[in-house]
Amino acid sequence: MSKYPVSPLATDLPTLPPVRGVRLASIEAGLRYSGRLDLTLMEFAPSTTVAGVFTKNKCPGAPIDWCRNILKHGKARGVLINAGIANVFTGKAGFDAVKYSAQAAAKAIGCSSEEIYVASTGVIGEQLPYQKIIDAMPTLYQQLDENQWKESAQAILTTDTFAKGYSITTKIGNETVTIQGIAKGSGMIAPDMATMLAFVTTDAKLPASLLQALLSEKVKTTFNAITVDSDTSTSDTLLVFATGVANNTEITDINDPLLQDFAQAFETTLKELALLVIKDGEGVSKLIEITVKGAVNDDSAFKIGMAIGNSPLVKTAITGEDANWGRVVMAVGKAGEPANRDTLSVAIGDIWVAHEGGVLTDYDRNKVNQHMKAETIKIKVNLNLGQGSATVWSCNLTKGYIDINGSYLRS
Amino acid sequence: MSKYPVSPLATDLPTLPPVRGVRLASIEAGLRYSGRLDLTLMEFAPSTTVAGVFTKNKCPGAPIDWCRNILKHGKARGVLINAGIANVFTGKAGFDAVKYSAQAAAKAIGCSSEEIYVASTGVIGEQLPYQKIIDAMPTLYQQLDENQWKESAQAILTTDTFAKGYSITTKIGNETVTIQGIAKGSGMIAPDMATMLAFVTTDAKLPASLLQALLSEKVKTTFNAITVDSDTSTSDTLLVFATGVANNTEITDINDPLLQDFAQAFETTLKELALLVIKDGEGVSKLIEITVKGAVNDDSAFKIGMAIGNSPLVKTAITGEDANWGRVVMAVGKAGEPANRDTLSVAIGDIWVAHEGGVLTDYDRNKVNQHMKAETIKIKVNLNLGQGSATVWSCNLTKGYIDINGSYLRS
Repeated sequence: MSKYPVSPLATDLPTLPPVRGVRLASIEAGLRYSGRLDLTLMEFAPSTTVAGVFTKNKCPGAPIDWCRNILKHGKARGVLINAGIANVFTGKAGFDAVKYSAQAAAKAIGCSSEEIYVASTGVIGEQLPYQKIIDAMPTLYQQLDENQWKESAQAILTTDTFAKGYSITTKIGNETVTIQGIAKGSGMIAPDMATMLAFVTTDAKLPASLLQALLSEKVKTTFNAITVDSDTSTSDTLLVFATGVANNTEITDINDPLLQDFAQAFETTLKELALLVIKDGEGVSKLIEITVKGAVNDDSAFKIGMAIGNSPLVKTAITGEDANWGRVVMAVGKAGEPANRDTLSVAIGDIWVAHEGGVLTDYDRNKVNQHMKAETIKIKVNLNLGQGSATVWSCNLTKGYIDINGSYLRS
Repeated sequence: MSKYPVSPLATDLPTLPPVRGVRLASIEAGLRYSGRLDLTLMEFAPSTTVAGVFTKNKCPGAPIDWCRNILKHGKARGVLINAGIANVFTGKAGFDAVKYSAQAAAKAIGCSSEEIYVASTGVIGEQLPYQKIIDAMPTLYQQLDENQWKESAQAILTTDTFAKGYSITTKIGNETVTIQGIAKGSGMIAPDMATMLAFVTTDAKLPASLLQALLSEKVKTTFNAITVDSDTSTSDTLLVFATGVANNTEITDINDPLLQDFAQAFETTLKELALLVIKDGEGVSKLIEITVKGAVNDDSAFKIGMAIGNSPLVKTAITGEDANWGRVVMAVGKAGEPANRDTLSVAIGDIWVAHEGGVLTDYDRNKVNQHMKAETIKIKVNLNLGQGSATVWSCNLTKGYIDINGSYLRS
């Protein structure tokens, strides 16, 4: 856990009950930190399918290569997660570290190493002392339990200031199923993907191809719609495991009406986890929700939203509780997407302050200024060009960000 | 001038001697500030040609529209510059403000208003009280003088903490000519263009088309290769005026050998002014020089350089004097350009710290740490993929940036 003050936007970790088909444990392996949990193993039932999305960074860590490669089998028995060392830019040693770690977990669980997913987070360029992982494995395996979610939500953190999890139940036909996940942030959050590691499990029975299709669709409006600082981690990983222990009807079509409640609950899970990541953005004190309408298409709206969400000038204005809509105009203009200054309207906190190319002289300044003091700042932009829309989330830029990132390696 | 501490990278304004064919003056017009020069007029000889480049922001200020429109004539008799109000997002009132201001200056100088360039810098969304400009014009015109460069270098500033100018003499054939410019920054510096306003004059005789070709070429490696915070101003303007008072040989071809010394001096002028802008980046304490080699082409190298230069994580690491090359790797990977982790090498302060996908265990850490304390931090990246190269300049991200931009409107 971080030595920095807990985010003012932090929320308590909800109760994370057992998910049928999942056992987990976390221990102190002393990989980089001392005196804290830093190595986590989740074990899944033999019927488990898996889906995943990963960073688009061109210099990914060795674990990303590993996971991408085995994902094609669509089967999973475990995931091994370490915090402190990202195992990025470590050459062949990095690949070996992943391979031998996965082999150790596979041996303990009794499966192929190609059914073991691996995720690492922390500093870049340091080698992962994988012998410590191998040595820790028997103890780690022995401690596997249905009730270790809280500990694991803690163990995967790095500079995060609070543990992040979400749990929801829904139905597939008459069968009640659980969707439950944990995540960590908190710098280098930008699509695609956000910085983070996130692990979502469900006891539902779903083919891997369907799970992947669902994930690929729902990630767009959730984890890929958040940004902290425009930087894209080399380790971003979002994995979804469906243990198949539930007795739900077999579903093969993403448009099957029986899947719709589940799909909705799944999207909610991803969105809630994504917002928790933003709420722990490094140095954050305000969440920013940006809604873009009237763009030429949804993709264009998304890019404009991200240009606003990533603008240091917009982010610092919000830190100063300054309703500086002029910087929003600037950010719209710099996105490189179709925009017409003279049809552009901007609202802050649902109050329109600029309309079709000019400031509104009579808007309620007190109400806008009051909104700027809130924890969540809403910015709305209407380009009045077409039907494209998007919502993205960001956070403000504070001195805390500079404190954290100006001294990370020396901490 | 700014209420913020003078940049530690500030340099003294050099002596700015008269440039043949240029008279200038600055006065207190009380447009937004009080007790400081805020309105500047430069008058040019009747033979003056002009070239310009402007922000690519899709929501530019009214002055940008005006200048772009008249630039096609290639002739200039004056430029009118105000500081404090950007005249952006002001609708028809903004257009009127430019038109009537230009008409007033044209009347004083005795030329067409389409020979008067206009540039504004400051807050967005406020209307420019152009009647004050019209009222000030007779006095402003009366004060025109060859020796007002220092005053004008001051008058065009906003949050800048020091005045910026550069002067050089060179030859076209046997004729000695001067190239001299002034510029202002200092937030929202990003290509294309950098944030700023810059006005470069020369007494050389050059056709407008040649001047524009020269500017368009040389801006790429100078003003378009700098970034402060990735934000792109709505008002960026770089204008070059050649008064034609010198008796140099007529030149019509950009490749004419007689032009090469001038072209070199012109590039130096643009580069020095651009670096002065970076050295006054909001909250700056270090200049960052990023050299990218081995990219698939120059454009790709440039984009990778900018991804590094705009990365908040790289910029804050440099604030912490932390040789965090891992973040450089991350930034290379997020640029979206061809890059191969396993051929990538990174140097800091000319010392290679990572080579072809792995950290070098035996590099001189003391020397690297020593370099991190310097005012100019050098980052070198070799992708080892092709022959593309580029150099870009950025600055670090500090708490000062947040101080300045979190309270701008309220200052």
